[in-house]
Amino acid sequence: MAEAKITKRTEDYSKWYTDVIAAAELADYAPVKGCMIIRPNGYAIWEKMQAALDKMFKDTGHQNAYFPLFIPESFLHKEAQHVEGFAPEVAVVTHAGGGKLEEPLVVRPTSETIIWNTYKNWIQSYRDLPLLINQWCNVVRWEMRTRLFLRTTEFLWQEGHTAHATYEDAEEETLRMLGVYRTFAEDFMALPVIEGRKSEREKFAGADHTYSIEAMMGDGKALQAGTSHHLSQNFAKAFDVTFQTAQGTREHVYATSWGLSTRMIGALIMAHGDDNGIVIPPKLATIQVVVVPIFRKPDEKEKVMAAVDAFTGALKAAGIGIKVDDRDQHSPGYKYNEWERRGIPLRIEVGPRDLDKNQVMLARRDNGQKTPASQNDLPRTVCETLDAIQSGLFEKALAHREKLSRPVDDYSKFNEILDSESGFLWSHWCGSGDCEEKVKNETKATIRCIPMKQEKEAGTCVVCAAPSEARVIFARAY
Amino acid sequence: MAEAKITKRTEDYSKWYTDVIAAAELADYAPVKGCMIIRPNGYAIWEKMQAALDKMFKDTGHQNAYFPLFIPESFLHKEAQHVEGFAPEVAVVTHAGGGKLEEPLVVRPTSETIIWNTYKNWIQSYRDLPLLINQWCNVVRWEMRTRLFLRTTEFLWQEGHTAHATYEDAEEETLRMLGVYRTFAEDFMALPVIEGRKSEREKFAGADHTYSIEAMMGDGKALQAGTSHHLSQNFAKAFDVTFQTAQGTREHVYATSWGLSTRMIGALIMAHGDDNGIVIPPKLATIQVVVVPIFRKPDEKEKVMAAVDAFTGALKAAGIGIKVDDRDQHSPGYKYNEWERRGIPLRIEVGPRDLDKNQVMLARRDNGQKTPASQNDLPRTVCETLDAIQSGLFEKALAHREKLSRPVDDYSKFNEILDSESGFLWSHWCGSGDCEEKVKNETKATIRCIPMKQEKEAGTCVVCAAPSEARVIFARAY
Repeated sequence: MAEAKITKRTEDYSKWYTDVIAAAELADYAPVKGCMIIRPNGYAIWEKMQAALDKMFKDTGHQNAYFPLFIPESFLHKEAQHVEGFAPEVAVVTHAGGGKLEEPLVVRPTSETIIWNTYKNWIQSYRDLPLLINQWCNVVRWEMRTRLFLRTTEFLWQEGHTAHATYEDAEEETLRMLGVYRTFAEDFMALPVIEGRKSEREKFAGADHTYSIEAMMGDGKALQAGTSHHLSQNFAKAFDVTFQTAQGTREHVYATSWGLSTRMIGALIMAHGDDNGIVIPPKLATIQVVVVPIFRKPDEKEKVMAAVDAFTGALKAAGIGIKVDDRDQHSPGYKYNEWERRGIPLRIEVGPRDLDKNQVMLARRDNGQKTPASQNDLPRTVCETLDAIQSGLFEKALAHREKLSRPVDDYSKFNEILDSESGFLWSHWCGSGDCEEKVKNETKATIRCIPMKQEKEAGTCVVCAAPSEARVIFARAY
Repeated sequence: MAEAKITKRTEDYSKWYTDVIAAAELADYAPVKGCMIIRPNGYAIWEKMQAALDKMFKDTGHQNAYFPLFIPESFLHKEAQHVEGFAPEVAVVTHAGGGKLEEPLVVRPTSETIIWNTYKNWIQSYRDLPLLINQWCNVVRWEMRTRLFLRTTEFLWQEGHTAHATYEDAEEETLRMLGVYRTFAEDFMALPVIEGRKSEREKFAGADHTYSIEAMMGDGKALQAGTSHHLSQNFAKAFDVTFQTAQGTREHVYATSWGLSTRMIGALIMAHGDDNGIVIPPKLATIQVVVVPIFRKPDEKEKVMAAVDAFTGALKAAGIGIKVDDRDQHSPGYKYNEWERRGIPLRIEVGPRDLDKNQVMLARRDNGQKTPASQNDLPRTVCETLDAIQSGLFEKALAHREKLSRPVDDYSKFNEILDSESGFLWSHWCGSGDCEEKVKNETKATIRCIPMKQEKEAGTCVVCAAPSEARVIFARAY
């Protein structure tokens, strides 16, 4: 790994982000515009994310399936809002097998249409409901401005698509999966999020309404970290999917869909990263602990490596992901820097003098603390330290968010705050699209969500002064 | 699940195959020609396959990554054999984001070109080698004749792509991964396979040479179940990938690639399926045991379900995948049929009379045997029975293959054998493409492989009578 310089966050946050990705070898741009190569270090994070989410999906009764990459172009046109939202950004296959296709095929930007066309055959009766399906796949949206992980032409994600007998059942599912996303963000990514409802103009194209979890990044901007949509009967009507009720009548089916993507790796970088690079929360790290043995002479090496072998065996047995960096050609200092850039949560340094004291040094990636630890009962100490890092990252991110969240009742302050510290602006809003649009045009801030957990509070719209019942979150966003 | 009729194998094997897939709800054809929808029951098998393979890949030092779906068309043309093999069957994106693209993009039929274009940036020195990478993804090959799982326009697979300093290192890797495939086929799929080398005309387009594992299906035909390619320096030269050796010289890198796909689900069906449907080997079954409680009156139900809850708890704790079918609207007989069609390896039937005897009935899917088993120590009995089913399936498939494998030294018998029982014809072959072509044109049989584990045996080519050193396997194939 070549020495990689990382720009300071205060100097150029955007450059810092790109440097971090290069320094940790997380991803590369591909030769095709806006497409991404996810390198092994980046993909390992995605695999951990997948495993955590997949387990939660299955624990809540969902099964995985796989639907085709290609969608007949005509399908997209069956739901009016949907085609309006997605048609401008699709990639289209016009030729295949050496000839021109009769009907062009769209590379899926999302799979509602092909899935609801299929559900027509799978759903006949109320006994077939609920139908709870998820798929892990790649999707393509032709984006103009791309950034690694955050916005790429092709990305990996999961998309859940469920079918229900009633509006209420679908609402329950929509909120259940929003809750799964929140749990995932908070417990695995160490990322505090706010659950809320999207405004009409920010909802999914084809949804009745959309919920999201919103997170704050290191620079105070917002990032939408997962969305859950109540589709009502929109797609069932577009594809004529009906079921026989227990009472013998026929009704259109209610739907939900929800998705989370490789964008979360970008969120992870910007939520926890520092001027030395990415910091991976222990629960998403394949290598949780890197061991750097220190020795100069051959007899020292032998002695140190014997101790390392003994305690790494015990750590592995305790289920801890561990890597011993015993390369001869690099100094310990070089190795410390490299593993810091790669965001490995905990480093164990051990040399002859440590052995004399029956100890090792533990160096935390999150706060740089170095403390000696006895070799006795090391697995317990390491597990506790990893837990402390996991919760420490969460607390730090939460404190950062709280610091940059403020009630704003004076619209003239919007730009000033956004230009200085950014952050979440909790303001009253009358509910009109015009006021929302005005804010967006004048300040580049959008309504991130209408938070679900807040006290009702009478107030007046920060833009037009019309009455409002609760605050919403305005922020500039990724 | 609707009642599904399955055609008998002896009546129409091809129809039987399609019926089995429908009856077990494994897959559907999609609205796009030749594309497939993998239903939850089919996808669950793929997930088990992935988990088993992925662990073996990682245990042999490989890391996962992700490369883009789209490949600039010009890349395909950089390796002469490769473009010849794949250009006729690619799907091409010509438009995206509302406009025409400057250069058309090919939807990956396989990823050697985009990956070797990337490796150029990742490999500088011998210290960067070997580079051992795998990816799980979808690929598209525009096939004329498609069959669910066996040959579909889009399919899911893994493709390994490794880089090495020497020809010998690459050869070792090629054979190592062939061995991983054999272990997977035999230990997980209960599918005996023959390892061998492909003839020149059957090798991968762009390879120096190709190895494969070949399996026999229930109808005596062959199925190629995984391939491992030694690419020599072909792609390194096409994409100019060189490295500095330890001696300071620069050389082109040696490559391997190897892949295994959702086609294996088709192999599983045809290797073990019977007239009642698919039979899933226990190691690839998510539901390994289905419990059908038997009761008529409410007080019987209560008593039976209490016993079921107790022993299913113990079975789950033992790591056994279990499903209790307590639906009220269906009779036990209906349920037996349904779970047989779905190929669940073991069924536990339990009613009031079984409880009186402190027993349950175990019904094996593979051979139909029903035996009583004590409720005491049931997890041990069930684990042993699952092991017996796993090895029983392998032995049965092996006996079938042995029965339909024969030495053939008289070419006039080829068609006769192939038209009656099919099977593997072990014949001498001189090594010429002309003889190979003649056999293919006249009998539809191809050389499946030149088996690696066989005694040298002097003989004469079954076609032209020229000298030959060993036998090869001819067969009609999927």
